[in-house]
Amino acid sequence: MVKQERAARTRQALVQAAAEVFAQDGFVLASLNSISRRAGVSNGALHFHFESKQALARAVEDEAAAVVRAIAAPAAGGAPNPLQRLIDATHALMGRLDRDVVVRAGFELAGGLPRRDGAVDLRGQWQGWVEEVLRDAEREGELAEGVSAADVSVTVVAATVGFELLGADDRTWTSPDTIVQFWDLLLPRLAAADGFGRLVSAGTPAAAPGRT
Amino acid sequence: MVKQERAARTRQALVQAAAEVFAQDGFVLASLNSISRRAGVSNGALHFHFESKQALARAVEDEAAAVVRAIAAPAAGGAPNPLQRLIDATHALMGRLDRDVVVRAGFELAGGLPRRDGAVDLRGQWQGWVEEVLRDAEREGELAEGVSAADVSVTVVAATVGFELLGADDRTWTSPDTIVQFWDLLLPRLAAADGFGRLVSAGTPAAAPGRT
Repeated sequence: MVKQERAARTRQALVQAAAEVFAQDGFVLASLNSISRRAGVSNGALHFHFESKQALARAVEDEAAAVVRAIAAPAAGGAPNPLQRLIDATHALMGRLDRDVVVRAGFELAGGLPRRDGAVDLRGQWQGWVEEVLRDAEREGELAEGVSAADVSVTVVAATVGFELLGADDRTWTSPDTIVQFWDLLLPRLAAADGFGRLVSAGTPAAAPGRT
Repeated sequence: MVKQERAARTRQALVQAAAEVFAQDGFVLASLNSISRRAGVSNGALHFHFESKQALARAVEDEAAAVVRAIAAPAAGGAPNPLQRLIDATHALMGRLDRDVVVRAGFELAGGLPRRDGAVDLRGQWQGWVEEVLRDAEREGELAEGVSAADVSVTVVAATVGFELLGADDRTWTSPDTIVQFWDLLLPRLAAADGFGRLVSAGTPAAAPGRT
């Protein structure tokens, strides 16, 4: 049991170190040596857990994908209405991109050149969820007259992908202030008048975990 | 004179070929051999014009930057009001990203990992211009009450960077329909009521060159 725990901890240290090296050097230039050195383990230990750099990248992406799924899952005690869930999720995602290098590297790996075979499409996963929650919002009458889920999806997906990308060099882009500024601009246009007053552009407490 | 023309044509073929190889393989894996082969010139000819892969990347970025500057310049006969100029410029930029691999590669090089020394910051250049034209719009009373140039800049810059990035894999994102959908969502919120009716979300004829 102790041995298993140690193995799990070594594996986790390697995923973290790989994310840091990928985020700094990019996938192509990242060396297995610098990853094992940063994780404080031997090359042998690295190869025991991961057969290749490709396998390490995949582990980083899988972990980032799990974070995106958790952010998108309707939380017990979270906001019940779809639009607020979307607002909360954008805050949570930007918070994770800001402080969790595995999530950051996961997104960058997905968009990197050259395209890797079998790469996890994190931006596509996010886009799919945004579209789904906005269709829910539309069905529940949360969108303003004449505004469709598809119209809103295009802008929310593109802007959040932009925040993610620009945030790699300047964290202002993933800051709560920026996300509030974005929602304060959009909400008066896209939310139906009778629900608009209840929406909180800064996110509800359910979104807070992403920011701690 | 004929000799100079030939040299200029060879140089241009090399910039074009470099952009194609960078867009496909990324900067790090791009080889000078595949660039000269694609341009149909010898390695010697490549080295006569460019001392390194870095110099080729710089030439691609410089050419893309010139395109962005031309798009941002107030055209003779173009839209006179700042908001329409911004709309027209987004259409022109997306059109160029869609069909001009040098502009596409220029943007991707600027955001690639690892960061290259002396890389031209194309997204920063675009951002600076968007902020400037929106300050003009604010000064001329084109923005709605309670909406600031800074608020609008955040959303327009992030969304256009998102369109650019997502458009690398799926050209729907840089299509005129998508850009119209974006502006149709935003304009009713951000434009002052008395100027709103004059704005054309599909762009005015001045924007057309970007789409031909």
